[in-house]
Amino acid sequence: MKARSDKIITLTTDFGLSDPYVASMKGVILSINPKADIVDITHDIPPQDVIAAALALKACVPYFPTGSIHVAVVDPGVGGSRRAIVARNKRTYFVGPDNGILTEFLDGADVHEITSKRFVLKNVSNTFHGRDIFAPAAAHLSKGALIKQFGPKVSDPVLTPLPELKKQGRDYVGEIISIDRFGNLVTNIPGELLHKGKKAVVSIRNKRIAKTVKSYSEAKRGELVAIVGSLGLIEISASMADAAKKLKAKKGDKVALKI
Amino acid sequence: MKARSDKIITLTTDFGLSDPYVASMKGVILSINPKADIVDITHDIPPQDVIAAALALKACVPYFPTGSIHVAVVDPGVGGSRRAIVARNKRTYFVGPDNGILTEFLDGADVHEITSKRFVLKNVSNTFHGRDIFAPAAAHLSKGALIKQFGPKVSDPVLTPLPELKKQGRDYVGEIISIDRFGNLVTNIPGELLHKGKKAVVSIRNKRIAKTVKSYSEAKRGELVAIVGSLGLIEISASMADAAKKLKAKKGDKVALKI
Amino acid sequence: MKARSDKIITLTTDFGLSDPYVASMKGVILSINPKADIVDITHDIPPQDVIAAALALKACVPYFPTGSIHVAVVDPGVGGSRRAIVARNKRTYFVGPDNGILTEFLDGADVHEITSKRFVLKNVSNTFHGRDIFAPAAAHLSKGALIKQFGPKVSDPVLTPLPELKKQGRDYVGEIISIDRFGNLVTNIPGELLHKGKKAVVSIRNKRIAKTVKSYSEAKRGELVAIVGSLGLIEISASMADAAKKLKAKKGDKVALKI
Repeated sequence: MKARSDKIITLTTDFGLSDPYVASMKGVILSINPKADIVDITHDIPPQDVIAAALALKACVPYFPTGSIHVAVVDPGVGGSRRAIVARNKRTYFVGPDNGILTEFLDGADVHEITSKRFVLKNVSNTFHGRDIFAPAAAHLSKGALIKQFGPKVSDPVLTPLPELKKQGRDYVGEIISIDRFGNLVTNIPGELLHKGKKAVVSIRNKRIAKTVKSYSEAKRGELVAIVGSLGLIEISASMADAAKKLKAKKGDKVALKI
Repeated sequence: MKARSDKIITLTTDFGLSDPYVASMKGVILSINPKADIVDITHDIPPQDVIAAALALKACVPYFPTGSIHVAVVDPGVGGSRRAIVARNKRTYFVGPDNGILTEFLDGADVHEITSKRFVLKNVSNTFHGRDIFAPAAAHLSKGALIKQFGPKVSDPVLTPLPELKKQGRDYVGEIISIDRFGNLVTNIPGELLHKGKKAVVSIRNKRIAKTVKSYSEAKRGELVAIVGSLGLIEISASMADAAKKLKAKKGDKVALKI
Repeated sequence: MKARSDKIITLTTDFGLSDPYVASMKGVILSINPKADIVDITHDIPPQDVIAAALALKACVPYFPTGSIHVAVVDPGVGGSRRAIVARNKRTYFVGPDNGILTEFLDGADVHEITSKRFVLKNVSNTFHGRDIFAPAAAHLSKGALIKQFGPKVSDPVLTPLPELKKQGRDYVGEIISIDRFGNLVTNIPGELLHKGKKAVVSIRNKRIAKTVKSYSEAKRGELVAIVGSLGLIEISASMADAAKKLKAKKGDKVALKI
């Protein structure tokens, strides 16, 4: 872990950028620590989609510096009984609701509930803990607060496993976990499996993807291909075109890999 | 007021993020003050909707540090006779067109017209004062320029009152002033009125909202409720669902509170 | 050129803001240079539209400080044989694929291919050079790396001329090069030509735009006008309305100026 002078705070929410919610969080952070360096991961998580937020974090947290503080607020249970937590693993800090959004990062992590009133706004609303609890907690972390100061240790954080890869004989059955702006279909099948056998074949809803490539440039314009994408996962793509539209594919569609 | 070293400049516009307009403003600011810390409030104000921008500012300005400089550019009168102004109230600075966008903040404020050529770009276009006047003015403010140096005092800034709450006997009639990404209907009725009487009932276009809650977790999935939202105003929401779609509601729809 | 302490890095991509791609680039940059000041130009370039990105950069790069580092990633050839380049002209630095995206800035510039492994990530994917090559290269530039250290000099960078203005007798024929959020139709006809002759008339697809104005305030609400826009180019606009919708205009439509 780097020195506690680190001041990068990232934000991942389902608030969108049209409303002033994200800006309110930034105002709160900068009021507590004017030196915080705030980076948006994305605010376009589909409303209340905790899994989508977990996947977005998984994709980019490893690229941020050691000591960064990641705030994740997709929070359908706001104002209810779900806990607010801060967590610290070997590399980095997390702040968010205890609803599974941080699942990927809590293995071996030190997790504490936020109960101390020292690190949250004086008036906490029942509807916007992003602004009233998570933003100020992150700002105080960035100024050197220790996570044990936030409240009691949490030994049973909520864990929400991501869509699971299944093995059937020598083959694998996964699914589409996200569709990006280009229409690339991101699966939960690890990329290293694609090049394991020379005859590895990807299919989606029983449609075989005829070609496997190492880069888009090996594909003809519009051609459907299987490729290892930037997350290290198998993707189904169409060169210079939108595979999701071509295949009328959607999140959750099953994808098989025959080796 | 904190020391004049404050360097947070916020931007609120109707420019969107697809065109390079906002980036041009940031380039101008950083060319004058490379240490400025620029924060986007929102650039998704509906084109030319001065009231929407005023409401967005009202929602988040209080959360920014004392001494911050807030630039607001929704400017249908650009290039015409409307004045460009800088203003300073007890907490904070504002820069924008004199078209009512800053109404909420000008009570007791010191307001000056921007006439000095010292604090604007050398070539001022007739179509983009965000880049040519407001961005450089804000940058110079952040470097310590005094607002009286910008030009003559303005004693009659344009004020555009926000949608007004009406009292009818013991009841109130307000309206929907914004609809957020989640489909929550934000009214202009202060939240404290909701819990004033035990029997307070909210209705929209004569449809009664049967339930009043303190947090979303008290509502069943999809149920319509009245709640005090994050702005301290009464909102009509649907738990885990989109109240605007359910009610086919739009901005300006009348909302009544019977106490 | 200012001192090499400059630390502004701008990003222009077609990645959108919904996926975590842009955030991954920011994480990489901040891991190498935590003091980098990252500014988004736009991430809404239409997928694979190299020309649109070139035009966005042309519009706002001049407003950024000398010494800024501009990263442009619209990269249909990623993973193929196209080169990755860094460039330096009199004012500023550029990083991106060698596919014409930087055309406007390479005249007289010093251009080098990125071949050194010192300035890129250890594992370079075949699908996301924005994260694996361009982001780390920019971060190293911001820390003082010299462009000649990145690899061999490039004497023949790919140049993709922007849509060309044609002269026909005393008249000009250009085209719509972009349509902004307000529905303004931006042409490639220099603004100074509009006020050259008193009788200058703009027409689009043979429809004459009856009025020429110096600012929107001279137009009646909804009236179509020709005006010199913020980029110094002739635009066709509708006061308080959307000219693109009114004229059913699209990018590439021919626009004539009769002088």
